[in-house]
Amino acid sequence: MNRRKFLTGAATGVAAGAAAATLSAPAIAQGKRDLKMVTTWPKNFPGLGTGAQRVADRITAASGGKLNVKLYAAGELVPPFESFDAVSNGTADMYHAAEYYWQGKHKAFNFFTAVPFGFTANELDAWVHYGGGQELWDKLSAQYNLKSFMAGNTGVQMGGWFNKEINTLEDFKGLKIRMPGLGGEVLRRIGAAAVTLPGGEIFPSLESGAIDATEWVGPWNDLAFGFYKVTKYYYQPGFHEPGSGLACGMNKDVWESFAPDEQALIQSACAAENNVMLSEYNAKNGDSLDVLLNKHNVELRTFTQDIMDALGAKSEEVVKEVGQTDDISKEIYDSYIEFRRKVSRWTQLSESDYTAARGAALKI
Amino acid sequence: MNRRKFLTGAATGVAAGAAAATLSAPAIAQGKRDLKMVTTWPKNFPGLGTGAQRVADRITAASGGKLNVKLYAAGELVPPFESFDAVSNGTADMYHAAEYYWQGKHKAFNFFTAVPFGFTANELDAWVHYGGGQELWDKLSAQYNLKSFMAGNTGVQMGGWFNKEINTLEDFKGLKIRMPGLGGEVLRRIGAAAVTLPGGEIFPSLESGAIDATEWVGPWNDLAFGFYKVTKYYYQPGFHEPGSGLACGMNKDVWESFAPDEQALIQSACAAENNVMLSEYNAKNGDSLDVLLNKHNVELRTFTQDIMDALGAKSEEVVKEVGQTDDISKEIYDSYIEFRRKVSRWTQLSESDYTAARGAALKI
Repeated sequence: MNRRKFLTGAATGVAAGAAAATLSAPAIAQGKRDLKMVTTWPKNFPGLGTGAQRVADRITAASGGKLNVKLYAAGELVPPFESFDAVSNGTADMYHAAEYYWQGKHKAFNFFTAVPFGFTANELDAWVHYGGGQELWDKLSAQYNLKSFMAGNTGVQMGGWFNKEINTLEDFKGLKIRMPGLGGEVLRRIGAAAVTLPGGEIFPSLESGAIDATEWVGPWNDLAFGFYKVTKYYYQPGFHEPGSGLACGMNKDVWESFAPDEQALIQSACAAENNVMLSEYNAKNGDSLDVLLNKHNVELRTFTQDIMDALGAKSEEVVKEVGQTDDISKEIYDSYIEFRRKVSRWTQLSESDYTAARGAALKI
Repeated sequence: MNRRKFLTGAATGVAAGAAAATLSAPAIAQGKRDLKMVTTWPKNFPGLGTGAQRVADRITAASGGKLNVKLYAAGELVPPFESFDAVSNGTADMYHAAEYYWQGKHKAFNFFTAVPFGFTANELDAWVHYGGGQELWDKLSAQYNLKSFMAGNTGVQMGGWFNKEINTLEDFKGLKIRMPGLGGEVLRRIGAAAVTLPGGEIFPSLESGAIDATEWVGPWNDLAFGFYKVTKYYYQPGFHEPGSGLACGMNKDVWESFAPDEQALIQSACAAENNVMLSEYNAKNGDSLDVLLNKHNVELRTFTQDIMDALGAKSEEVVKEVGQTDDISKEIYDSYIEFRRKVSRWTQLSESDYTAARGAALKI
């Protein structure tokens, strides 16, 4: 049985049954409905886990408990990377996760989290809300009996922690670097050995020398993991995840079973988290960067433009290949690239040039 | 009677009465409550007016009509700049507006919209949500019987439309430039004649030569006003409003009369708009910039760093003066400036450096 058939079967059979099953007798009696949210995050993991919890709590609170969302951390109900299937087939009602975790299901999911040299958080939101992104996402997700909304963003991720200076492209050659996904593929094409490791294994691997370098998220999450203790240089800017969107994905039958007011409330709760999580990352990254630089005397390094040019060229290759997987990938890729052409000029002329001029003028 | 006493009187007397009065008999009978939202925007003004309408509609939809918010455009119920008093005294329940319109009430309101060389949209949200900004805003607003949330942002505004090139600071001298608020004060200190004009009067004033230059919002709103037809150069980056927040301000008695689920729902609706409006501005500014540059052959110009340095120094002076108005201004100013020190470095190392490197690498 191929995956598509299995999933289509799930969509029409199992999922619909599960949607009805979530309405237990006592819940119906009180006009209440219990909903299960699975996540790919450890319980209350700062930023991601707490953001997922806020989405759940916001839906519960704003509905006065009529929609009672219970959050299951990674592994509590299903293993983290089975969240997709669990929601698709109705074992759970919704997930909070990064869509690129599902690239084994369909490579085009990458576009709804982050791709190398792709959108920043604001650009991704602009595309999803006003550039046709949501409609394309709906089309892709419907193949798996899912309906998703943006519900959080980490902002730009840092370039990573290194034990040697990276001055030319040659310096990447042979380095074992923890970087998953498309960013890892880009590194492989310039001669580095990109590896994938779960968060908890990164620190010991750096300490033992099993890996030479790692990326993780940004100053806030990186400080907590203590990478500054076992590496020398903190590199920026990151190229691989310039604004990672997090999604609230729902079983499509469950979504369609909601009354219009419930749909409006859920949509609002997700968009709110899109604003709140990015705010938390920006606030806490600012604080943590201060601690890293001024308390732990971390040495900040900047990738040269030559290196960024080479990473950019390889990134464009890798992302274009993802966009050639099939018809829908092509449609999403074309929309993404055309939108990036227009929005990136605006971002540059507005946020980027303003903040550069402000920094230079005020020496901050 | 001084203004403070009047407002305090309104808070304890009129407003409480009006809050009760909004619960008309038929509304109560159906468990419904009609709420009046006044705004400072013309009906459906793109971005600002449509954003306010989305806040109203989202509250109405997500509550299933239990909270039925009717929007009144500028002048429909009260003149636009009387929205503050109308909500403070309970004539209306809430407003959607820019807080700096109330700087005649208290100068510290400027910090909750935008100040020259201040926060970008993301930085403002980070401060409000996670840097103590909301608490300070609550303290300021409570003096006027108001409770406000962020509910939209225009993003960075452009530097303006000019008929002569601005190569040195001298070139500003004597120019009549439409720029309201603190930005206008900065221009006055470098020798320009800053004037305030309502939106509808800008185009004819430029055409007749009554003014030499103007700022407005950004490519999307500026294109609609047709400034490119009567000026030669479009300057960037803007320094005066680097991320103008819009607020949903509520009568405090009305806010406190809401049940917890209603409060959660309203807060969620506001935060959602904070994400959605910025997305709309970024998407449509990107499109409109393309039209301005490629269809109307607008000449884009960049302020030199020397000019930005001088504008920055004067901006710091002006903003510091605002921060010395009284105790609460000082408290807000200190919090704002300390937060800016930390978050601006993060913005620079993440969004700003990434987008600059991306632009150079991909030639976009």
